[in-house]
Amino acid sequence: MDPAPDAAGQAADARVVRTHNDILRATLQLLLGQGWEAVTHPNVAREAGYSRATVYNHWPTRNDLLRDAFNRVATMPHQPPSGDLRHDLIAELTGYRDEMQRHRLDRALAVLVDLTASNPDMIPVRDKLVADGEQLVRDRLAPLLSGPRLDAAVLMLCGAVLQQALMHGELPSDEVITASVDLTLRAIDATGPDPA
Amino acid sequence: MDPAPDAAGQAADARVVRTHNDILRATLQLLLGQGWEAVTHPNVAREAGYSRATVYNHWPTRNDLLRDAFNRVATMPHQPPSGDLRHDLIAELTGYRDEMQRHRLDRALAVLVDLTASNPDMIPVRDKLVADGEQLVRDRLAPLLSGPRLDAAVLMLCGAVLQQALMHGELPSDEVITASVDLTLRAIDATGPDPA
Repeated sequence: MDPAPDAAGQAADARVVRTHNDILRATLQLLLGQGWEAVTHPNVAREAGYSRATVYNHWPTRNDLLRDAFNRVATMPHQPPSGDLRHDLIAELTGYRDEMQRHRLDRALAVLVDLTASNPDMIPVRDKLVADGEQLVRDRLAPLLSGPRLDAAVLMLCGAVLQQALMHGELPSDEVITASVDLTLRAIDATGPDPA
Repeated sequence: MDPAPDAAGQAADARVVRTHNDILRATLQLLLGQGWEAVTHPNVAREAGYSRATVYNHWPTRNDLLRDAFNRVATMPHQPPSGDLRHDLIAELTGYRDEMQRHRLDRALAVLVDLTASNPDMIPVRDKLVADGEQLVRDRLAPLLSGPRLDAAVLMLCGAVLQQALMHGELPSDEVITASVDLTLRAIDATGPDPA
């Protein structure tokens, strides 16, 4: 069994965590402000105020830096299900919209789309971010829909927010989010749940 | 009244049109292959096989080049309405999906989103492209829905294709497109059209 860390060890650990956070925050800032091309070890070191050696030591490649920066983006909080489907779907899409506003999630998604076009190593990072993002909506609708109808409903709800944010350059209003959820739930009511 | 152009004038006009087309084709190729940063007068001249002076002469600024290249993208054919709403919506979304495949419309949209983030002069170009893209869906649903419900339905249908293409890196299947349209139409049937 490992011995408990002593005080000096704890201080060193805290320093590593702080360095790690500082550097990833700087990476994300470059990413959202100037695009993925700006994420280079020298730029990140300068922006974060650490040596290049420190950056290379933690993240040997640019993809390592990009991956960890996007993983920070992916920590969007999901509210626990309340039992009320309509309430939960509205809360989830509103939370998604608010993350776009607060943490420039829309910009992060746009950069990630651009990045994966030229850098296939980042496709798993995108897929994880998207799967995490869609998960709650999918889980809540899965008892009611299946197959292409479930896929369609998830794509439509998440896609409505994306379409407004990326293609119109503005975030959807509460009214539009509520209308999206209500149209979806009415469609399900109208046909009843898919046969098991 | 202008005199009818003579043979020499017609040949000169044809040459101008060909030059124009060659250069915009090269611009679009750079744009889709390497992103908007690659669209510079020297790059475009090299790619198209014309002198820089010719490129500058037709398009004095980079934004002129970008604007005309994106306007070429926006010439997606819309089928005339058949009278069958379901058929028309499915045909429209399928056409959108097929343009993504054939002419890399998904890549053009991704580049345009990235471009407008740093170049506000291109926002009207994006807005025109998006308005043209959504127009038929909006026109067909406008007799049945209004206000936030109409906005939501348009965003959901167009957004479902966008979500699948940009966020999942694959194009929606015929089944998913059909399911998206059917969910929307069932929602409208369930509540009836909006009161006038």
